[in-house]
Amino acid sequence: MKILIINGPNLNLLGRREESIYGSKSFENYFAELQEKYCNDELTYYQSNNEGDIIDKLHEEGFGKVDAIVLNAGAYTHTSIAISDAIRAIKVPVIEVHISNVNAREEYRRISYIAASCIGTIAGFGLDSYRLAIEAVKK
Amino acid sequence: MKILIINGPNLNLLGRREESIYGSKSFENYFAELQEKYCNDELTYYQSNNEGDIIDKLHEEGFGKVDAIVLNAGAYTHTSIAISDAIRAIKVPVIEVHISNVNAREEYRRISYIAASCIGTIAGFGLDSYRLAIEAVKK
Amino acid sequence: MKILIINGPNLNLLGRREESIYGSKSFENYFAELQEKYCNDELTYYQSNNEGDIIDKLHEEGFGKVDAIVLNAGAYTHTSIAISDAIRAIKVPVIEVHISNVNAREEYRRISYIAASCIGTIAGFGLDSYRLAIEAVKK
Amino acid sequence: MKILIINGPNLNLLGRREESIYGSKSFENYFAELQEKYCNDELTYYQSNNEGDIIDKLHEEGFGKVDAIVLNAGAYTHTSIAISDAIRAIKVPVIEVHISNVNAREEYRRISYIAASCIGTIAGFGLDSYRLAIEAVKK
Amino acid sequence: MKILIINGPNLNLLGRREESIYGSKSFENYFAELQEKYCNDELTYYQSNNEGDIIDKLHEEGFGKVDAIVLNAGAYTHTSIAISDAIRAIKVPVIEVHISNVNAREEYRRISYIAASCIGTIAGFGLDSYRLAIEAVKK
Amino acid sequence: MKILIINGPNLNLLGRREESIYGSKSFENYFAELQEKYCNDELTYYQSNNEGDIIDKLHEEGFGKVDAIVLNAGAYTHTSIAISDAIRAIKVPVIEVHISNVNAREEYRRISYIAASCIGTIAGFGLDSYRLAIEAVKK
Amino acid sequence: MKILIINGPNLNLLGRREESIYGSKSFENYFAELQEKYCNDELTYYQSNNEGDIIDKLHEEGFGKVDAIVLNAGAYTHTSIAISDAIRAIKVPVIEVHISNVNAREEYRRISYIAASCIGTIAGFGLDSYRLAIEAVKK
Amino acid sequence: MKILIINGPNLNLLGRREESIYGSKSFENYFAELQEKYCNDELTYYQSNNEGDIIDKLHEEGFGKVDAIVLNAGAYTHTSIAISDAIRAIKVPVIEVHISNVNAREEYRRISYIAASCIGTIAGFGLDSYRLAIEAVKK
Amino acid sequence: MKILIINGPNLNLLGRREESIYGSKSFENYFAELQEKYCNDELTYYQSNNEGDIIDKLHEEGFGKVDAIVLNAGAYTHTSIAISDAIRAIKVPVIEVHISNVNAREEYRRISYIAASCIGTIAGFGLDSYRLAIEAVKK
Amino acid sequence: MKILIINGPNLNLLGRREESIYGSKSFENYFAELQEKYCNDELTYYQSNNEGDIIDKLHEEGFGKVDAIVLNAGAYTHTSIAISDAIRAIKVPVIEVHISNVNAREEYRRISYIAASCIGTIAGFGLDSYRLAIEAVKK
Amino acid sequence: MKILIINGPNLNLLGRREESIYGSKSFENYFAELQEKYCNDELTYYQSNNEGDIIDKLHEEGFGKVDAIVLNAGAYTHTSIAISDAIRAIKVPVIEVHISNVNAREEYRRISYIAASCIGTIAGFGLDSYRLAIEAVKK
Amino acid sequence: MKILIINGPNLNLLGRREESIYGSKSFENYFAELQEKYCNDELTYYQSNNEGDIIDKLHEEGFGKVDAIVLNAGAYTHTSIAISDAIRAIKVPVIEVHISNVNAREEYRRISYIAASCIGTIAGFGLDSYRLAIEAVKK
Repeated sequence: MKILIINGPNLNLLGRREESIYGSKSFENYFAELQEKYCNDELTYYQSNNEGDIIDKLHEEGFGKVDAIVLNAGAYTHTSIAISDAIRAIKVPVIEVHISNVNAREEYRRISYIAASCIGTIAGFGLDSYRLAIEAVKK
Repeated sequence: MKILIINGPNLNLLGRREESIYGSKSFENYFAELQEKYCNDELTYYQSNNEGDIIDKLHEEGFGKVDAIVLNAGAYTHTSIAISDAIRAIKVPVIEVHISNVNAREEYRRISYIAASCIGTIAGFGLDSYRLAIEAVKK
Repeated sequence: MKILIINGPNLNLLGRREESIYGSKSFENYFAELQEKYCNDELTYYQSNNEGDIIDKLHEEGFGKVDAIVLNAGAYTHTSIAISDAIRAIKVPVIEVHISNVNAREEYRRISYIAASCIGTIAGFGLDSYRLAIEAVKK
Repeated sequence: MKILIINGPNLNLLGRREESIYGSKSFENYFAELQEKYCNDELTYYQSNNEGDIIDKLHEEGFGKVDAIVLNAGAYTHTSIAISDAIRAIKVPVIEVHISNVNAREEYRRISYIAASCIGTIAGFGLDSYRLAIEAVKK
Repeated sequence: MKILIINGPNLNLLGRREESIYGSKSFENYFAELQEKYCNDELTYYQSNNEGDIIDKLHEEGFGKVDAIVLNAGAYTHTSIAISDAIRAIKVPVIEVHISNVNAREEYRRISYIAASCIGTIAGFGLDSYRLAIEAVKK
Repeated sequence: MKILIINGPNLNLLGRREESIYGSKSFENYFAELQEKYCNDELTYYQSNNEGDIIDKLHEEGFGKVDAIVLNAGAYTHTSIAISDAIRAIKVPVIEVHISNVNAREEYRRISYIAASCIGTIAGFGLDSYRLAIEAVKK
Repeated sequence: MKILIINGPNLNLLGRREESIYGSKSFENYFAELQEKYCNDELTYYQSNNEGDIIDKLHEEGFGKVDAIVLNAGAYTHTSIAISDAIRAIKVPVIEVHISNVNAREEYRRISYIAASCIGTIAGFGLDSYRLAIEAVKK
Repeated sequence: MKILIINGPNLNLLGRREESIYGSKSFENYFAELQEKYCNDELTYYQSNNEGDIIDKLHEEGFGKVDAIVLNAGAYTHTSIAISDAIRAIKVPVIEVHISNVNAREEYRRISYIAASCIGTIAGFGLDSYRLAIEAVKK
Repeated sequence: MKILIINGPNLNLLGRREESIYGSKSFENYFAELQEKYCNDELTYYQSNNEGDIIDKLHEEGFGKVDAIVLNAGAYTHTSIAISDAIRAIKVPVIEVHISNVNAREEYRRISYIAASCIGTIAGFGLDSYRLAIEAVKK
Repeated sequence: MKILIINGPNLNLLGRREESIYGSKSFENYFAELQEKYCNDELTYYQSNNEGDIIDKLHEEGFGKVDAIVLNAGAYTHTSIAISDAIRAIKVPVIEVHISNVNAREEYRRISYIAASCIGTIAGFGLDSYRLAIEAVKK
Repeated sequence: MKILIINGPNLNLLGRREESIYGSKSFENYFAELQEKYCNDELTYYQSNNEGDIIDKLHEEGFGKVDAIVLNAGAYTHTSIAISDAIRAIKVPVIEVHISNVNAREEYRRISYIAASCIGTIAGFGLDSYRLAIEAVKK
Repeated sequence: MKILIINGPNLNLLGRREESIYGSKSFENYFAELQEKYCNDELTYYQSNNEGDIIDKLHEEGFGKVDAIVLNAGAYTHTSIAISDAIRAIKVPVIEVHISNVNAREEYRRISYIAASCIGTIAGFGLDSYRLAIEAVKK
C-alpha cells in the first residue's frame, strides 16, 4: 500500500517544541522507524507550515497516486475550511491524527473543521497515533 | 494484558440499529473475533444503558483489576460529567472509542465531556475502532 | 392494539407533587380509567425514575411486542440524548406527551432532545394528553 | 360547540406544496371530512397569509363568538409576538397545531412564540393533528 | 401642530386586554380626552394590527402631512425591521411610546428595532405616556 | 419570457429615501427602462409593504403564470420565514436581489431567511442588480 | 411636590463633553430654568461620579424625604445591579432618564439594569427629558 | 431530628480520588464522626452513582420519614433536571452541599440545576460542609 | 478569634427592604446577637455601599489584623472583578455569604465573580448564613 | 476593459470535485468561453490555493493594472480577514462571486469576511455567476 | 511635560500581592525611579480603589492641568463604562497600561472597555510598561 | 542586540493603504530611520503576506539567531492559531505590535490569538509602536 503522511504547521519542530506536550523525538527519526516497520508498504512524508501547500499536496496525491493519507493538520485543524474542502474534493481517504489529546487543551482546540471530512480520527497517543492510523488504513 | 471493553447506551442494539451508521454486525460476534485475535490477552466485555452502572463498573475495575479500559460511552459521551469524573477518579487508563465519525453528525454530538479525561480517542473506523484501541493499549 | 405508556422521572408522584402544575389525580387511577375506555386494546404501563431503565424498556418492547409507545420522559426530555437515540433505534413508533405546557415554563424546559425522534408531540392538556396520544396512535 | 380553525401562511397551498412534508390532500377537502365527523358541532375555517388579518380574526371571534380556536400559525409561529399577544388578550382558549414535527426540522422552527400563550400543542400527526385538537377541545 | 398617533397590534383591545398590565380605559376614550386637552393642535389617530398598513400610513403622512408621529408599535417593536426602515425613510420625526415598562417584562420585549430610528422613547407611564410624547413634540 | 419583479417594504420610496444608500432614481422610472431594454420579454412589477400580500402574490404567480421571479424582499429578508416558505412552496424559480451591499451594513441585515430558498443572490450593484438578475434568469 | 434629580457619572461635564451627543448647556444652568418653571414644587439636585454615593443618596431620600426621584444613572445604567437593587429597596418612585437615544449608540448601551426597577423611562429628548420626567411625576 | 445525607456519583471514592481536591478521608469514617457528634439526632447515609436511585431515595424519604436531607449530588448537580424536579416535588427541605469550591473549577461546574430547588447551599469547606449543613438544618 | 463581617450595597437596609426576600430584622440587631453568642471571639462589622471602600477595608484588615473575613458583597458579587482581585491579593481567608438563595432568583444573580476567590460559600439560610460562616471559620 | 478573475482554494478542481454542487465543467474551459464572448475586453485569470498568494496578486494588480477584479475566494471567504483587508487596501473595485448558493449550505459558509469589502456579491448561478459579475463590472 | 499616572484598584498592593504575576517592587519605589529618570518632566501619581474617584481625578486633570495621563485601571478595565466615558469626555490624551499580559490570563480579562477610548495600549512588560507609556507620550 | 521585525499581510502597502488609519509613510522609510537610531544594534526586517512564510521565518530565527522578535501579524493576529503556536514553540521572546488601536475598530479585531503567546503588546501609537517595542526589548 502507498500511504502519505502529511504534517501541518510547527510539526517540523517536533522534538524541539514544548516537549511536555509533544515529546522529544523528531518526526524524521520516528518516520524512519515507521518505514522500517512497514517495509512492505510505501510510506512517504510531507510537511509544510503553509495552508496552501498542504492543499496543493492533497490535490496532487489525492486522485490515486497514493492509497490513503494520514493528516495531522496541526493548528490548521481548528481554522481551515479550505483544507477541509480539499479533503472532500479528493478521492483518496484521509485519516485525522493528533499527537496530544486536543480535547484536554484550550477550548479553541476542540473545534475541528477537518474531522467531518475525514474517515476517522485518532488523537492522544503521542507519535504512536500515526502507527495506529496506518493500522486503520491497512484494514 | 487484561483489557475491559465497556459499551454505553443503545450499543447492545448493534446490528439491529440504524445500520447505515453503525453497521450490521452484533457486538457479541465482533467481540468473539477480538478475543480470538488477542488470545494471549484477557478481554472482558460489559454493556449497560445505565449511566450509574457504567460508573460502578469503572470504580470496580479501575483500581487495578484490569490494565486498561476501552470505553464507548455512546450518547453519555455528550452529557455525562459523572462518567468523566469517574474516569479521572480511577487509576487505570481509559481510551475513548466511537464507531461512527461523531464530528460528521449532529452538532450536539461534537461535544465530548469524556474525551478530556481519557488518554486518547479513536473514532470513525466502525467496529475496527475497538481493535485499534487495543493496539494502542498494548503499546 | 397493544400500546405501552412509559412515564419518566417524578411522574410516579402525580397527585402528590406541585398540584397547581400537575393536577391532583394519581396516574394509576387515571390509567385504570384509560384501560376501561380502551377495553378492546391492550394498554400497559411502565414508570421509572431511571434513564437506563427507560432505555431498556424501549429496547425490550420496541421491536414488535407492542404497536406503539406513548412516552412522557419528564425531565429527561430536556437532557437525554441516550433516550432519543433509543427511540430512533427501535422499530415501534413513539409519541411524546407532556402534562403541562412546557413552553410556558422555565427556559430549559423548551428544549426537547426527544421530540425529533418521535412521530409527534402532545403537550399541555393535563392527563388528557395521554388519551389524545392514544387517539393519535389508533388513527 | 363552536370551534374555529385558523390556518396561517402557505397553508392554503396544502396538497400542492412540498408533499413529502405536508401530504397531498388540500385542507378544504380535509375540513369537509371534519365537518361531517363533527356534525353536531359548528366548525368554521379561516386562512390568511397575513399576520395582521390573523390577529383581526382572533380579536373578532375571541370574545365569545366561538368556544375554542385551533390555530396553525405556520411560519408566524416562529416570528410573531403580535399573534402571541393577541392570543393572550382574548378570552377564548387557543390550541396550537402543526402538521409536521417542527422539532425534527430546521433549528429556527423549534422556537414557538405562540406556544406559551396557548393551552396546549399538538404537532406531527399530519392533518390528523387538527382532529386531535378538536378532541382536546371537546374534553 | 398636526400630530398623528399610530397604535400597532392588539392596542385596539385596550381596556379589554390584560388589565393589570394595560389598564381598563379604551384608547378611544383616552384619545378624546387628549384632543380636548390639546384643542389648539390637530390630533389624529390610526390603529392597525397589520405591519404593512402601519408602514403605508407612515409613508403617507411622513412627508409633511403631519408635524410629528407618536408611535406605539406594540409587539412589532420587537420584530419589525421594516417599520424601523420606514421611520428612517420618512422626513417627519417619530417618538416611540409604550404603555407598560417593557424592560420589566419578558426578555424578548427588551429588544427594540424601532428605538434607534426614533428621536426618543417614553415607556411605562400607562396611557399618560402618549401625553408626555405630545409634550415632547411640542417642545 | 415572463418575469415578475416583486419589491418589498419601503422600496416604493426609492428616490425619496436615504439617497446615499439607495440612489435617487424612482423604481418606476428604472422599471420603464428595463421594459424597454427587454422589450421581447414580458416584465411585470409588484410592490407591497405587506408580508402577507407578498406571499399571496408569490402563490398567485408562482405556479406557472410567470417563468421567474426577481424578489427584493427589503427588510422582510431578515425576518420573514413565511416568505421563505412561500418561495419553497411554489414551482417558479426566485432570485434574491438587493440594491445595497447588505453585508456592509448593520449586523442584523446579514441574516437572510430568504436566500436559502432562492436559486441565487445578487447584491450591491444599485438598481443594476435587477438587470443582472434578469440576465441570470434569461440564461 | 418634592422631586430629587440625581445625575450619575460624567454628567457634571455637560456642556463641556462630546457636545454633538450631549449638547452645550451645563446642567446647573438647565436646573435653574427647571426650578423657575416649577416654582411651586421643591426641586433638588445631586450629582456624583460614584456608584456608592448614588446608592447612599437613594437610601437617604427614598423613604419619604422626597415624593419622587428622577435618575440619570449615566454609564452605571448599563453595569450597576447595586443601584437597581437600591431603587427596588426604597419606597419612593424612580423615573429613568437619558439625554441621548441610548438605543442608537453602542450595543452595550442598550442594556439597562436599572429600567426594570423604575416606573418608566424617558430617553432621547436632550435635557428636555428631565422636564418630561417631572411632568410624568406630577401626573 | 432525623437527617438523611445523600451522596451522588463518585463520592463513594472519597479518600481514594484526586486527593488534592477532595481530601484523603473516606466518607464512611467522616460519617461515623458526625454520628458521634450528633448522637441525639438520627443521622442516616445513602450513596449511589445512579441518578434514578437518588430520585427514588428522595421520593421514599421526602414525605416525612426524615426531617431534612443534605444532598451532595456530585456531577449530577450540573446536569440533572430530574433530581431538581424531585427535590421540588417532595415535602422535606433539602440543603445542597459541595466539598470543593465548585466556582473555582471548570466552567461547567458553575451551573447548578439543583441549587434553585434547595433551601440553601454550602460549598468549599471540605467534609466540614456536611457538618455546617446539619448545623443549618438544626436551626 | 478575630472575625470581620463585611456587608456590601443595600444591606444597610435589612429589615426595611423587600422583606419577603431578606426578612424583617435589621443587621445591627442580628449582629448584637452574634456578638453575644460568640462572646469569646472578637467580632467586628463594616458596611458600605461603595465598591472602593470595601476594597480599602479588605486591604486594611486582610494582612493579619483579623483571622478571617465573612463577606456578603450584595450586588457587587455579580459585577466586581476588583473586589475579587482584592480577596486574592490579601492573606486572610474570606468566606462568601448570601442571605437569599441567589440561584433561585434572576439569571444575572447566578454569576459570582467573588466565589472563586473565596474559600467557600454559604447561601440561602437567611441571616443564619452569617452564623454558619463563623462556624466554618472557627473549624 | 481589463478584468482579472481570481479563484481561491480548491477551485482548480472544478469539474473533478463534488459535481452535484460545483458542476462538471473545468474552469479553464469555461474561461475560454468567457474570453471568446468578451473578445473586446482583456480577461485574465489567476488561481491559487494559498491565502498569501491571493493577497500578493490583489496588491500587484489592484493599483491600476486592471480595471476590476472578480474574486471567488472559496473557503477563504469565511476565514480570511487578511484578504478582506487587501481588498480594502487596493484601489480597483472587487466583486465577490460564488458558484453555489452559500446560504443553503453549512452554517459556517454563511459568514463572509470578504463581502463587506467588495462592491457587490453574486452567488448561486453556477459558473454563470462569473459572467454576471463581468456584466456588472462593464456597467 | 506634565504627566499624571493613575493606578486603579489593588495596585496600591504592588509588591505585596500575587508576586508571581505582579512582581515584588512597590509602585512608590518604582515611581521614585521614574521621577529621577524623567527629572525634566513633571510626573505625578494618583491611586484609588474607587471607580468614582478615578473619574473625578480624570475630570480634574483632564482639561489641561497635565499634558497626558497614563492609566492602569486594574480590574475596572474590564467592567467600567463610566471610566471609559470619562476618558472620552476629557481633552487630555490617555494611554492604557497593564503590568501583566492580560490576554494570557482569565477570559474576562481580555475585554477592555477602556482601550477604545485611549490612544493606545501597552501591556505585559511588568513595571516597565509605565516607562514605555511615558516614552510614547513624549514622542 | 539583534532584533528582527516581522510584518504580516498588507503591511507592505503602508503609506499606500487607508491612510487615515495607517498613516502615509512607507515602512521601508521608517525602518531606515529606526536603523539609524539604533545603529549599535542589528535590526533586520521581514514582510510576508503568507501565514506559512511567517511561521517559517519564526522557526528559522527563533532558536537564537536573533535576540528578540517584534511582530505585527496584521490580520493574522485575529485568525492564526498556527502563528501563535509557532511563537510558543520557539525560544526567542516575541513582542506583539499594532499601528492602530485595534480595540477601537471592528469587533473581530479585538480578538488576538497571538497576544497570549507573546511577552507583551504595544498598540495604537502609529509607527512609533515599533520603536517602543524595541525600547521594551532593550530593557
